[in-house]
Amino acid sequence: MTENIGHYFKENQTELLKEYFTLLSFPSISSEEGYKEATRNCAEWIVTFLQSIGMNVSLWETSGHPIVFAEDLSAGPNQPTLLLYNHYDVQPVDPLELWESPPFSPTQYGDQIRARGAQDNKGQCFYVLQALKYYRTVEGKLPINIKLVIEGEEECGSEGLIEILDQKRNELRADYVAIVDLGIPDRETPAITLGLRGLVTLDIKATGPNGDLHSGSHGGLQFNPIHALVDVLSKLRDPSGEIMVPGFYDSMIPMPLEEKKQLALEFNEEKYRAQFGSSATGGEVAFSPLERNWLRPTLEINGIWGGYNGSGFKTVIPAQAFAKISCRLVPGQDPKRIGELVVKTVESLAPKGVKIEAAVRDGGGPAVRGGGTSKIVRAVAEAYEEAFKKKCQFILEGASIPVVSQLSATCGGETVLFGLGLPDDHIHAPNEHFGIDRIELGLEIIVKIIKKLQNKGH
Amino acid sequence: MTENIGHYFKENQTELLKEYFTLLSFPSISSEEGYKEATRNCAEWIVTFLQSIGMNVSLWETSGHPIVFAEDLSAGPNQPTLLLYNHYDVQPVDPLELWESPPFSPTQYGDQIRARGAQDNKGQCFYVLQALKYYRTVEGKLPINIKLVIEGEEECGSEGLIEILDQKRNELRADYVAIVDLGIPDRETPAITLGLRGLVTLDIKATGPNGDLHSGSHGGLQFNPIHALVDVLSKLRDPSGEIMVPGFYDSMIPMPLEEKKQLALEFNEEKYRAQFGSSATGGEVAFSPLERNWLRPTLEINGIWGGYNGSGFKTVIPAQAFAKISCRLVPGQDPKRIGELVVKTVESLAPKGVKIEAAVRDGGGPAVRGGGTSKIVRAVAEAYEEAFKKKCQFILEGASIPVVSQLSATCGGETVLFGLGLPDDHIHAPNEHFGIDRIELGLEIIVKIIKKLQNKGH
Repeated sequence: MTENIGHYFKENQTELLKEYFTLLSFPSISSEEGYKEATRNCAEWIVTFLQSIGMNVSLWETSGHPIVFAEDLSAGPNQPTLLLYNHYDVQPVDPLELWESPPFSPTQYGDQIRARGAQDNKGQCFYVLQALKYYRTVEGKLPINIKLVIEGEEECGSEGLIEILDQKRNELRADYVAIVDLGIPDRETPAITLGLRGLVTLDIKATGPNGDLHSGSHGGLQFNPIHALVDVLSKLRDPSGEIMVPGFYDSMIPMPLEEKKQLALEFNEEKYRAQFGSSATGGEVAFSPLERNWLRPTLEINGIWGGYNGSGFKTVIPAQAFAKISCRLVPGQDPKRIGELVVKTVESLAPKGVKIEAAVRDGGGPAVRGGGTSKIVRAVAEAYEEAFKKKCQFILEGASIPVVSQLSATCGGETVLFGLGLPDDHIHAPNEHFGIDRIELGLEIIVKIIKKLQNKGH
Repeated sequence: MTENIGHYFKENQTELLKEYFTLLSFPSISSEEGYKEATRNCAEWIVTFLQSIGMNVSLWETSGHPIVFAEDLSAGPNQPTLLLYNHYDVQPVDPLELWESPPFSPTQYGDQIRARGAQDNKGQCFYVLQALKYYRTVEGKLPINIKLVIEGEEECGSEGLIEILDQKRNELRADYVAIVDLGIPDRETPAITLGLRGLVTLDIKATGPNGDLHSGSHGGLQFNPIHALVDVLSKLRDPSGEIMVPGFYDSMIPMPLEEKKQLALEFNEEKYRAQFGSSATGGEVAFSPLERNWLRPTLEINGIWGGYNGSGFKTVIPAQAFAKISCRLVPGQDPKRIGELVVKTVESLAPKGVKIEAAVRDGGGPAVRGGGTSKIVRAVAEAYEEAFKKKCQFILEGASIPVVSQLSATCGGETVLFGLGLPDDHIHAPNEHFGIDRIELGLEIIVKIIKKLQNKGH
């Protein structure tokens, strides 16, 4: 079958790339109000695509961006049902000036396509769509029942999907759930992701005087809100990287040693430094790099601003200063509870004369962790091993897909997380890109997984 | 004479305000490249004004914005020469959205005029210009010799004036130097400023990875440059407000007790809080509010930025983060030396994995401090006491006019600092304003000072 797919891909490459470029050209930034219509247009393009290959498609409306739901149950009740999850929304694009080509004008250089969403998650969604098209148009039918959920709010908390889960419980029921939004450690190494970290995000505001003041006339009188903010943020981690929020670590459930032994925990510091230009010196010094990235929670400042940032200089004590922070969570840490602990700590650290307010944002989610022995994990591992001709690794992912835990529970099936992202695809950053070779490889792997699940039971 | 001036002001108020509004409408922001032409236009308007009242005027070109120089030496060699200093450049206007009317469209509400520069320093410059006009047009001649220096780079370091001082040594020679860019504690209290703090400003940059990274995929691996920056900035002051830069306080020359006794050091905390919306809790806890503001140096963060600051959220570890900091200095502290100490400290605090670079900006200057007994201080004090009918206080100012120390040395005359600014004029901030009553009062005071210096010798 590999040769068939290779042949099929080459034959259809021009049309495929055209479709891929169209998908990438929608600025479907879910977190920014101004892109609401563009985000819907993207969903509608996917609906049209799925209709054109004969799937049964619905657009589920939510309080936020719509969800594309499609199914083909023609394999019948004797065959299992696989639900595939992707998202069509993307991250914001700033700093725009660092992009080498406009983020929504997909640009090919060598084998790579550069665009916001090229990988995360439109690229990975795209090879899923193409695998379904392959079955529907070349093989004539799907060997198992397929359901497809492509949401539009993964990058801003999946609120619409979460609110609709209960109502759509029947439509979502599946024997197997595949979250196709993950990656592999490098181009030659197949891997399945056994877990994700959870996430909680917060906004912080420091307020001093009732207006901006001159830092000479008021310096030594006013407590500068920027200084208050940096003092408070600095106190949230100690020099060893430990997070100094009382209760933060209390509810963590450590990974059993047996499971930990399955993981590919080796870390190539030299390769990392070459790729990203700096050493892996973040996190708690007491742990190894991949333990810090996979098995330990974090607290990061994702944005900070206050005072003057133009050219030249302005000697100002600003009225306010702001920060955005997030925590990655591990099993046992409830996002809401951890968020509340951070709020309490941050607000209690305010110096006299400055008010510090912190608020937990919507859209967090708990960590997800599975084992390496379920039917779906084995099927995916076999597909990867055949495609890569190499033993499949088990890894974890430091990032989060907040909805996975609840989606998996609603569908009621065994869940697996995988994908073909690479560490240097620049997702969430300028110059995000994805390889044409990985579109082909993804198509092949999805086709194989579907085939392998045939007659595998419910 | 007071009655004469009051009458003259009322008679001419409409024309005066029209001229004042014209002066305020030039967006002469010296620190921003885009306003270069507007800044020159402002200088040229002043040249035209001074020519129209018969002064001998030059526009001194420098590497930066031009300097307006004017003189009237017709009082002859038996009369002393007074050099008056003002500046026609203004601070940037952001945050623009907080202005209640456009900053360069002067707007009157009640007795107040709102505009950038309404007080600092166009308002104070304006009453000086009007006092000269009064003598030239009403009295017919000036009783003493007058020189006028109005520079266009006070808000960005006075580099042009500093570079030209030596070359213009003869033109600048004066018996008395008046820096008309200061203030009074409240509307009822006359005061002369016996000293200013010095200033040094710095840019700081923290660099981590070679591009923005996903804070999930890299959280626990990368040392977040924002976190490195807040850690470093936080370490620059201890919880008692002491500045933790080795050597920072070493060269300070304390004020002699005799001089300190002259100062009006009482501070009304309640009034301050009512005016500015927050308590005076900044600076070193070991000192009283006005000691902290006048007699102690500071270190303030005037701007900070890094990562995502849009609506919504972006889970990013940015490649870089930035800050602007400044120190106010007291006598004995050399701006360049203090800047170097801060650079050394900041760079030495960088954690492994993040590079911290700091650079001292041009345009700093040392502190200035004088006594209360010189001829010019006595003349100004008498003028204030007559105009206010109240004893004149001696105060210091926490802010800086970096050029004063060198300008005073070049002119070779006794120097005095004064003005009619009030603490809540919102200089360097949105909604800067100045009162029409203070234009009249300033005109009266300058006229009196000039008269009092007649026959006072060289």
